Amino acid sequence: MTLREERLRLRVRFGETDAAGIVFYGTFLSWFDAGVSNLVRIPGTPSTHKDGKPTFVLPIAEVGAKFFSPLRADQEFDLVSTIVKIGTTSLRVEHEAFALDGTRIAAGFEQRVHCRIVDGDFIKEPIPDVLRDHLTKRGKATE
Amino acid sequence: MTLREERLRLRVRFGETDAAGIVFYGTFLSWFDAGVSNLVRIPGTPSTHKDGKPTFVLPIAEVGAKFFSPLRADQEFDLVSTIVKIGTTSLRVEHEAFALDGTRIAAGFEQRVHCRIVDGDFIKEPIPDVLRDHLTKRGKATE
Amino acid sequence: MTLREERLRLRVRFGETDAAGIVFYGTFLSWFDAGVSNLVRIPGTPSTHKDGKPTFVLPIAEVGAKFFSPLRADQEFDLVSTIVKIGTTSLRVEHEAFALDGTRIAAGFEQRVHCRIVDGDFIKEPIPDVLRDHLTKRGKATE
Amino acid sequence: MTLREERLRLRVRFGETDAAGIVFYGTFLSWFDAGVSNLVRIPGTPSTHKDGKPTFVLPIAEVGAKFFSPLRADQEFDLVSTIVKIGTTSLRVEHEAFALDGTRIAAGFEQRVHCRIVDGDFIKEPIPDVLRDHLTKRGKATE
Repeated sequence: MTLREERLRLRVRFGETDAAGIVFYGTFLSWFDAGVSNLVRIPGTPSTHKDGKPTFVLPIAEVGAKFFSPLRADQEFDLVSTIVKIGTTSLRVEHEAFALDGTRIAAGFEQRVHCRIVDGDFIKEPIPDVLRDHLTKRGKATE
Repeated sequence: MTLREERLRLRVRFGETDAAGIVFYGTFLSWFDAGVSNLVRIPGTPSTHKDGKPTFVLPIAEVGAKFFSPLRADQEFDLVSTIVKIGTTSLRVEHEAFALDGTRIAAGFEQRVHCRIVDGDFIKEPIPDVLRDHLTKRGKATE
Repeated sequence: MTLREERLRLRVRFGETDAAGIVFYGTFLSWFDAGVSNLVRIPGTPSTHKDGKPTFVLPIAEVGAKFFSPLRADQEFDLVSTIVKIGTTSLRVEHEAFALDGTRIAAGFEQRVHCRIVDGDFIKEPIPDVLRDHLTKRGKATE
Repeated sequence: MTLREERLRLRVRFGETDAAGIVFYGTFLSWFDAGVSNLVRIPGTPSTHKDGKPTFVLPIAEVGAKFFSPLRADQEFDLVSTIVKIGTTSLRVEHEAFALDGTRIAAGFEQRVHCRIVDGDFIKEPIPDVLRDHLTKRGKATE
C-alpha cells in the first residue's frame, strides 16, 4: 500500500523571516500545515463547512522538527509531506524541506487525531473511509 | 459622553520582526486587534462561544496605518486604542503606538461592523446595548 | 509609461484564518508584501544580502485596506499588485484581491520609501536606476 | 546548581486562533520564543544590536511539542520556560503552558545552539560567560 505524498513549491515571504535574517522557526509549522491541507484535500469535496470550520478536523497531538540549514527571505524551496501511518483515529505525517539545490533545510513530523467538534469539544472519531481511501493513494503536487 | 480607551503595554516578540531588523508592518494589525479585544471585553461575559467564535463579531471594513519610527525585537511599547465613534452597526477605533521614551511609532484606525454569523454569512446587525454601554465608559488597561 | 504589475495566485493557509472562520485581516499585509517582493525582484539580482537584509530596503510609510468579502481556509484567490507612482524616494503600490469567480475580496495601497540602512538607521535615498527601470516595465506573474 | 526559569502570563490574541476555533499550533512556537527571550534578557544589556540582530544568537536545532487541551481566543494562560541543560555551545529549554485553572495545555522543548553570525553564516561558538552565569541563576517573571 502506498500512502499519499505531496510536494509543494514555496517561496519565503518577508514577514516569515526574523531579525536574525533567516526564517523564523515557527513559520515551518504554517508550512507543514499547508502540506497537510494539500494531503487531505479531496477533489470535489469542499475543504470547509459554511461556517469556515474544516471538513476534516485534525488537531495536532504532537509535532517535532529539526533544522539543518537556514532559509532567507524570497528564497524558493520544496516541502515534501508524506503520510507515513494511518491508524483508526490518528495520522502520522512527515515533512522535509529542501532548497532548490537539494540542501536539506528541515525535517519534521506531526501526529494528528481525527475529531468531530461537538459543542466546541474535540471528540476523537475514526477517520472516515473517504479520507482514508484518499490518503492511501499516491498524489502529486496540486499547488 | 466619553468613549472607552485602553492602554496595553506590549513587548515585541522575535518572530514579529523581519529580516530588515525591525517589526514587520503586518504585526501592527495583530496588536490593533489585541487593543480591540481589550475594548470589547466585558467583565463577566465570556469573550467566545463554546465553538470558539467571538461573542461580539466585529469584522474589519477598513484599516489604515502610518508608521513613524521602527521597533526592534524585545522592545517594550504602549498601544493606546480608543473608540472614537459608535454608529448603529459600526465602530471606529483609533490606535497609537508609543515607545517608552514617548517616541511615536505608529498610528492607525479601524472601521468595524457589528455582525451576526448566520450559516457562515456575516450579517450586519445593530451593536447590542450591552456592548454600546460598555464602550461609552472610559476604561483602564486590563492587561 | 507603463508601470509594473504582478498577479499572484495564492491559497489561504489554515493558520491565516481566525476563530471567526475567515482570514484574519492582518494576513492581507503579508500577502501585499509578497506582491511587492514579486514586483521588486529583478532576475539575476539576489533578493537579499548575505546577512539576510533585503537588497532593496522599502519600509512602509502608510498602508490602507478595505475588505469586501471574506475568504475561507484553503480558498484560492488572485492578488494583483500594481506600481501606481514612483517618486524620487517613494513608491505607491495598489493591491486588489479577487476570488476565482471574480468576487472582489479586498483592495489596498501602500506607500513605501526607499532607504539605506546605516548603522541600524533607515535613511531615505533615491530609488536606484536599476529598480526604477525594472518597475517601469510591465511584468507578468512569476509565482 | 539551579537553572533559570521564567513564567509569562499571556493572553491569546484573536489572530493566533484558526478556523477550528482554537489556537493555531504554530503559535506556540512564538510563545516558546518569547519565553526564551525572557530567559536570555540580561538587565542592563540591550537585547539587540543597532542593526536589529539579537545580542545572543540562538538558532533552533530541534523543537518538539505535545498538545493536551485547546486554548480559545482571549483566554489567559501561563507559560513556564525552564533552562534544563547548558552545554558548551547548546541550550535545552523546556516549556509548559497551563490554563489559569491549572489545566495542562501543552509541553515542549527546544534545543538551541549559540552562534556568531559571520558574513551571514551561523558559526557555533561557546556560550559567553555572561549568558551562562545569567542562566544559572533562578529568575522571576519579568513580563
